[in-house]
Amino acid sequence: MNLIVDVGNTYVKFAIYNSYNLIFKLSFELSEFKKQYKTLKKDFPKLEKAIISSVGHLSQDQVELIKKDLPIIELSSMTKLPFNNLYKTPKTLGVDRMALVGASVQQFSNKNVLIIDAGTCITYDFITKENNYLGGAISPGIRLRYKTLNNLTANLPLLGTEEPKSIIGNSTETSIHSGVVNGVVKEIDGIIDQYIEDYLDLTVILTGGDAIFLSNQLKNTIFANSNFLLEGLNFILEYNSK
Amino acid sequence: MNLIVDVGNTYVKFAIYNSYNLIFKLSFELSEFKKQYKTLKKDFPKLEKAIISSVGHLSQDQVELIKKDLPIIELSSMTKLPFNNLYKTPKTLGVDRMALVGASVQQFSNKNVLIIDAGTCITYDFITKENNYLGGAISPGIRLRYKTLNNLTANLPLLGTEEPKSIIGNSTETSIHSGVVNGVVKEIDGIIDQYIEDYLDLTVILTGGDAIFLSNQLKNTIFANSNFLLEGLNFILEYNSK
Repeated sequence: MNLIVDVGNTYVKFAIYNSYNLIFKLSFELSEFKKQYKTLKKDFPKLEKAIISSVGHLSQDQVELIKKDLPIIELSSMTKLPFNNLYKTPKTLGVDRMALVGASVQQFSNKNVLIIDAGTCITYDFITKENNYLGGAISPGIRLRYKTLNNLTANLPLLGTEEPKSIIGNSTETSIHSGVVNGVVKEIDGIIDQYIEDYLDLTVILTGGDAIFLSNQLKNTIFANSNFLLEGLNFILEYNSK
Repeated sequence: MNLIVDVGNTYVKFAIYNSYNLIFKLSFELSEFKKQYKTLKKDFPKLEKAIISSVGHLSQDQVELIKKDLPIIELSSMTKLPFNNLYKTPKTLGVDRMALVGASVQQFSNKNVLIIDAGTCITYDFITKENNYLGGAISPGIRLRYKTLNNLTANLPLLGTEEPKSIIGNSTETSIHSGVVNGVVKEIDGIIDQYIEDYLDLTVILTGGDAIFLSNQLKNTIFANSNFLLEGLNFILEYNSK
């Protein structure tokens, strides 16, 4: 059994895989790390190995907690990956992006794949059918756009995410919803179209916290899978165990 | 001679029009307001009337400074406008957006016009050929997107604006440039396309601080005019003097 630990900007996720099957998933705040790990250990005594992916701030103490129980991979630019990393600055490639590309290699090998992760940030990652990872893009996610309109300007309110009814907002609120949400939708559709122009045969995967909210608003066909990143981490862990 | 005072989020602009001809323009920080106004008065003793548009924080003292010399319009939801304002919440319509629509009425009457102002925020404003203003959208501008990626996430650097060489960034820096700049370009192109679908005969105007940077990257034909907002204010001032 594999323990997957995914530390994001806001939350920590634990997932447990039996070989390639997800059997448990839990999301919690970083401050609860120790308590949640202790409970997990009791409930799943047969854990064999673990992988940690952290874009947030996991302390060395928190890592040691797992290390004393299990052999562990701390995902980094030193980790052996199941694809050719042609990123010019591999040391600065985020571990979350490595995991997404790993999942794409496992599930869509021999295809050109664009992975779009719509979370705190929107990341775009592209891997060719020859298994070469080329890179992609990073832009602010939906919540960041709402927040920055409020934080960094004089007069605009902070709103909750809402699907706009029209491209034309007829109040401050509906203008912001249209600008943020239609803006993100047009950005994603436009970037997909550009990749299709350059690489005819393209599979597009949409994942991340805003994937479900966005999927029915986007023009292009898309596979959404909320466990995509976790599956990539599990695949990288298995790949390194052989 | 007309004095136009445009107080934005960051800078103040003075402009002087002789009827409809721009004869002077100056941009400065708000703290220099008093000094700059005194110099202006000396250089242009024949000023007859003024209009002030403020989305920033102009103090009552600063307004009084002009008021004791000239008849003045402080642009607000009470001002008589040269178009039908069908905004559902006219009191919350930003004065900068009123000015842009005013300029559009003066220069492109009897056309469907979409005005895109790419500054601190990107605002979209739509007025039909029947002279009805319907509303639009507000999204974060280029600089806000760069800033929020740095401010509100754990690991990303703050970069200066740069035109991306490719849709595929192959480093953290080029990924951010692609996400921010290509993201804005795809958003604007996509929103224009959507309006063209709904309103066949559409004139698109691009203005604001990032207009020149963006204009050669955008797909659709566009008239860029860096004085558009000032011309709108001058038109509203003349419209109210008749």
